[in-house]
Amino acid sequence: MHRAVALAALGLGRTSPNPVVGCVVLDAQGEIAGEGYHQQAGGPHAEVHALRAAGDRARGGTAVVTLEPCNHTGRTGPCAQALIDAGITRVFHAVADPTDQASGGAAALRAAGIETHGGLLAEEAARGNEAWLTAMRLGRPFVLWKYASTLDGRTAAADGTSRWITGPEARADVHRLRAEVDAVLVGSGTLRADDPHLAVRHGADAGRQPLRVVADTAATVPATARVLDGTAATLIAVAPGADTGHLAAAVADGRAEIAEVPRAAAGGRGLDPHALLAALHSRGVRSVLLEGGPTLAGAFWAAGLVDKAVGYLAPALLGAGPAALLGAGIGTIAEALRLDVHDIARIGADLRLTAYPRSTAAAAPRFVNAPSTEES
Amino acid sequence: MHRAVALAALGLGRTSPNPVVGCVVLDAQGEIAGEGYHQQAGGPHAEVHALRAAGDRARGGTAVVTLEPCNHTGRTGPCAQALIDAGITRVFHAVADPTDQASGGAAALRAAGIETHGGLLAEEAARGNEAWLTAMRLGRPFVLWKYASTLDGRTAAADGTSRWITGPEARADVHRLRAEVDAVLVGSGTLRADDPHLAVRHGADAGRQPLRVVADTAATVPATARVLDGTAATLIAVAPGADTGHLAAAVADGRAEIAEVPRAAAGGRGLDPHALLAALHSRGVRSVLLEGGPTLAGAFWAAGLVDKAVGYLAPALLGAGPAALLGAGIGTIAEALRLDVHDIARIGADLRLTAYPRSTAAAAPRFVNAPSTEES
Repeated sequence: MHRAVALAALGLGRTSPNPVVGCVVLDAQGEIAGEGYHQQAGGPHAEVHALRAAGDRARGGTAVVTLEPCNHTGRTGPCAQALIDAGITRVFHAVADPTDQASGGAAALRAAGIETHGGLLAEEAARGNEAWLTAMRLGRPFVLWKYASTLDGRTAAADGTSRWITGPEARADVHRLRAEVDAVLVGSGTLRADDPHLAVRHGADAGRQPLRVVADTAATVPATARVLDGTAATLIAVAPGADTGHLAAAVADGRAEIAEVPRAAAGGRGLDPHALLAALHSRGVRSVLLEGGPTLAGAFWAAGLVDKAVGYLAPALLGAGPAALLGAGIGTIAEALRLDVHDIARIGADLRLTAYPRSTAAAAPRFVNAPSTEES
Repeated sequence: MHRAVALAALGLGRTSPNPVVGCVVLDAQGEIAGEGYHQQAGGPHAEVHALRAAGDRARGGTAVVTLEPCNHTGRTGPCAQALIDAGITRVFHAVADPTDQASGGAAALRAAGIETHGGLLAEEAARGNEAWLTAMRLGRPFVLWKYASTLDGRTAAADGTSRWITGPEARADVHRLRAEVDAVLVGSGTLRADDPHLAVRHGADAGRQPLRVVADTAATVPATARVLDGTAATLIAVAPGADTGHLAAAVADGRAEIAEVPRAAAGGRGLDPHALLAALHSRGVRSVLLEGGPTLAGAFWAAGLVDKAVGYLAPALLGAGPAALLGAGIGTIAEALRLDVHDIARIGADLRLTAYPRSTAAAAPRFVNAPSTEES
């Protein structure tokens, strides 16, 4: 199952709106006969890849798969039936399928006389699929907040300069994060200040780009912004009635799409983050990398809409400059948002912290089934 | 030598103005015959403790000591002579003694026909003695800056509340830091806001307290401040001519001492940090824990007077509130103070980062002698 989880991760960023899934098929002697993972939405599922690789050796064998095999016919046929047809006699899966349409795979396998076991390495597998599982559970995209700051919490110097706070290794790691999500989101203030490109530059995934999204209440994105260069799809989310005339050429060229999103309720600034996520969800986005700025991040945290945080901490001090988070609605220490640190890593000279909100929608642990063994 | 370095650390906080030193004496067969460390200023040196423990077994044996044995008579006799008298035939030391008065120990040993080796585990031993070595080299106390903040760099919430940002384990760790230094320094703003006690509460070192120091330009410390409770010595550093009348009773009772320190040069705020350290050095202080607030820390960083930083990072977010560092004189990203992360540790739910300034007075590596072997 460790191998199946590793195989699943190879699909990160390419399978949306589907989950990532990995599968290993063992022959009757317990030797690995085939491996596979879900490579892209619309393509064959992990089980099908692994069964094809195994060929006749699958007969009498065992399938180890990170997610309960599906039982419905979408763009591809049900995997449960494929496993039955291949003569598999035993199936281990990690995480049960939480969706209505695809679930029931284990039951179908058992009905066909196949021995099934659920919950194997469930926590690890759920963590690897946290974006999709969270999106399925909450009906909105998974939100990963990324920030980079100095030890004294500054994201830029007093004069606004921020290139570069972190080193090249940390910046390459951010490109890896972008490559694994469906959309990258920034506020219009960050866009005007930094004119970020937001496309994936590092790594092998040049062909596949996340949707670039700008939360731009008053449609202030200049027509010359780098996000309008056409190298990846770009969505400009504006308040109803905003004047988007200067973006008409970009829209006509297919370099941008404009979406009207309701304003935040009284007391909030900018667009309603719930409505913004709903607009993205309706476009098939299942995971969002929230890159800044501090006000947009504050609105998402205040709304309880951040599922995971990744912070790049540069061993530097500035003594002045903006913070990574502003206006999360917290007045006193007892109201502090508390997180649990999941991982700390050195990335070049910098540190990377990965943490989950303690009280809100922490993704993975909720999905962990108690290990269960059901035999037919 | 690993054992000797560990022994030396047992003296941290008690030996000032002397270094910490550990010594292991092996008998002629190479078995450990005696161990010792410098326990307190004025008491026997590490070598003497170890030789006493070894007794006759020292004859023909080897001494392993973290610092080059001294060659001068102060409150105790020269250790080089004690080693010679005990019949030691071989001495390994880690770090050469940088002081004029005590150096020459290795030469005296060689002159007596003893085989000497310097530089063994020098980096590790120098790190363990970094405060004293820095104070000897620079002629001012070693300055360790401690801060505690949230992930977004806040040291308090919008309303000023800060109890508690970090958990009990991190706060206990701060008491350990206090127990290892000669003085604890805060600014008057922090004192008025938090009324800290600054004494060592945790651990076994109840009897030994660092000097509590308040940088209080205008003598605003109230007579009721907790630092004036008499449980440890307290120094109030004020600008010349400040009105200290309200502190007269505390001074008369021995609960406080007042020291006049020149103001910072034009452009700086508050007291001159160089002059403040000089005043502490003249009182025998060789190490200072700089606990805050942000303006005082900024003045020390701007003056290049911080030798080490320890940050406690709470996995929490506030979105508003003060930062740990303010006004270090940095205007743009190219001027950022850069550090090297030496260590990251989990302390309860919090993280502890230990770092050294990259360009200024990083303590330990400068003292590392190239390993050398000189035989008589």
